[in-house]
Amino acid sequence: MIEGVSILGTGLLGASVGLALRAAGYKGTIVGWNRGASGGKIALDMKAVDRLVSDPIEAARASEVTILAVPILATVDLMEKLAPALGPDCLVTDVGSTKRLISETAARLYNRPDRAAFLPGHPMAGKERGGADLADANLFHGAAWLFTDAHDAQRTPRGGELVKEWREWVVAMGAKTIELEPARHDELVAWVSHLPQFVATALSAILEEQVGGAPELKDVGGRALREMTRLGSSPFSMWRDIAHTNTDAVEKTLLALEERLALLRENLRTPELRNQFEEANRFRRE
Amino acid sequence: MIEGVSILGTGLLGASVGLALRAAGYKGTIVGWNRGASGGKIALDMKAVDRLVSDPIEAARASEVTILAVPILATVDLMEKLAPALGPDCLVTDVGSTKRLISETAARLYNRPDRAAFLPGHPMAGKERGGADLADANLFHGAAWLFTDAHDAQRTPRGGELVKEWREWVVAMGAKTIELEPARHDELVAWVSHLPQFVATALSAILEEQVGGAPELKDVGGRALREMTRLGSSPFSMWRDIAHTNTDAVEKTLLALEERLALLRENLRTPELRNQFEEANRFRRE
Repeated sequence: MIEGVSILGTGLLGASVGLALRAAGYKGTIVGWNRGASGGKIALDMKAVDRLVSDPIEAARASEVTILAVPILATVDLMEKLAPALGPDCLVTDVGSTKRLISETAARLYNRPDRAAFLPGHPMAGKERGGADLADANLFHGAAWLFTDAHDAQRTPRGGELVKEWREWVVAMGAKTIELEPARHDELVAWVSHLPQFVATALSAILEEQVGGAPELKDVGGRALREMTRLGSSPFSMWRDIAHTNTDAVEKTLLALEERLALLRENLRTPELRNQFEEANRFRRE
Repeated sequence: MIEGVSILGTGLLGASVGLALRAAGYKGTIVGWNRGASGGKIALDMKAVDRLVSDPIEAARASEVTILAVPILATVDLMEKLAPALGPDCLVTDVGSTKRLISETAARLYNRPDRAAFLPGHPMAGKERGGADLADANLFHGAAWLFTDAHDAQRTPRGGELVKEWREWVVAMGAKTIELEPARHDELVAWVSHLPQFVATALSAILEEQVGGAPELKDVGGRALREMTRLGSSPFSMWRDIAHTNTDAVEKTLLALEERLALLRENLRTPELRNQFEEANRFRRE
C-alpha cells in the first residue's frame, strides 16, 4: 500500500491528481511542492495536498511515490536532482506530454537496484488554461493515461509492486491505461494532440489578423469557430517544451497537413473534394 | 402581418425555422415542401410545418413569405422557377451559406415592381449532420443571421414591409441580424466558417489514414481532438455548393493557413513560436 505521495508542481494537472486520488479513496499523506507560492496555496486550500514543503527533494524523500507535474524540461531537471537523493524503495512518475526525452533520462538515472524506479506517464487530459484554480477531481474521467517502459521499474526492489499499485490508482481516478513504446508515443501524440493544437494556434492567429479588430464578426462563426479555436488560448509556456522535445514528429504532421490543405485547395471544384470529405466522415464514424 | 409562410426544403435548417417560428409565437400557416418524402414527413410529424405540398411553386404561391432552405445551387434553381410564378406581394428569402451568386440572381430576377421581393439571408447555425430529425426550435438562439441587399426589396410594393417583419421574426427566433455587402459576406464567412470546416475535413482525413485503423488510439486525443474533428462529419453534399460558389475566397484562406502552418513548422524552436501563440491568445481573449 502506497502510504505517502508527493506532488511536485501543483498546477492544473498536479492539483487535479491530488483531488482525484482523494475522490478515489486514497487515505495516505499527500505532500505538495510548487515553484510559485500562490499555486501551492491554492492547491492546499482546495485540499489537493495535505501540506506544502519548500524543497522538492524533501517532499520526494518523505513519500513512496512522487508525481512530477511540471513542464517537460523542468521534469528532466527534477529527475536529475532527485535521482541521487532517493532510495531504491521509491517510485517517481511524471505527466509530461512527450516521452522520449523523459524515458531516456529515466534509463540513464533510474531503474537500477540502487536507485528509485521511474515510470514515464502521460494523462491525456488538460484544459486550455493551466493553474491550480482550474483543478478538477474528474479531470481524468474517461481519459487515456499513457505509460512507457513500465517493465523497467522491475529492476528496482519495489518498482514492480509500486508501478502496479500506481496504475491501479490511475484506473481508480477514472482513466484508461495504455502502454506504448516511447518513440511510438511521441509520434502518436504528434498526430492526435500536438497537430490539433498547432492547427488551432495557426487558425486563431490568422483570424486575429483578419477579424480581431471587429469583435462582432468573431461571433459570426458561432459554435464551430469557437470549437476550432478554443485551443488557441493554450499558453506558449506549456507548448514550448513540447515543440522542443518532439520537433521532428510535429514537423512531419504539420507538413502533412499543409499538403492536405493544398490538395483541398486545388480540388475545390473537382471530385477529389468528395473523397476528402468521405475520408473525414470515416474518421468520425463511431 | 405575415399570414402564410412556406418552407421549401424541410431539412435541418428548414424544419428548425418552422419550429422556431412556432416557438416565437407565429400564428399563421406554415406550408412545407421537401424533395424527399421522408424528410417532409419527419418535419410534418414534429409540427415544423402544418401541411406538405408536392409542388414548390404551389407552396410559394400560397404564402406571403417563402423560405428557401435547400443547398445553394438548388436555391438558385428554385429562384429561377419561382420568379415568374410569384406576384409582387410576396417575399422570398433563403438560408444559403454563400451570398454573391444568390444576390446576383436576386438582382436579375426579383426586386422589381412586377416581381416578388427577395432577401438574401444566412443564419450562422447548423449541426455537423443535416436532416429534419435533428431540427431544433433553439437552433438560432444567439446565432448571427446575416443579410445582404435588404434595401433592394423596397422596389416591390410590399417588399419593405415584409422584409421588416421577417427580420423581426428572425430576432424573435433568438438570432442577431447583421447587414453585409454580398462580396464582404462571402469573404468573411470564408475566414470564420469555410476555413474552419475545410481544416477539420483535412485534419480528420489525415488522421483517418494515420490512426483510423486503431480505434483505441482515436480516444487518446480526448476532448481536444473530438472538438477539432467534429466538423469532419459534415456532408460533402452541403459543402460542394459552397466550394463551387466561394472558390476564390476559400482558396485564399486555405493558402494563408498553409503558409501559417509552415511558419510554425519552421519555428518550432525559435522565439517566433511565442509570437504565434500570443497572437492566437489575443483572438481568444474576451
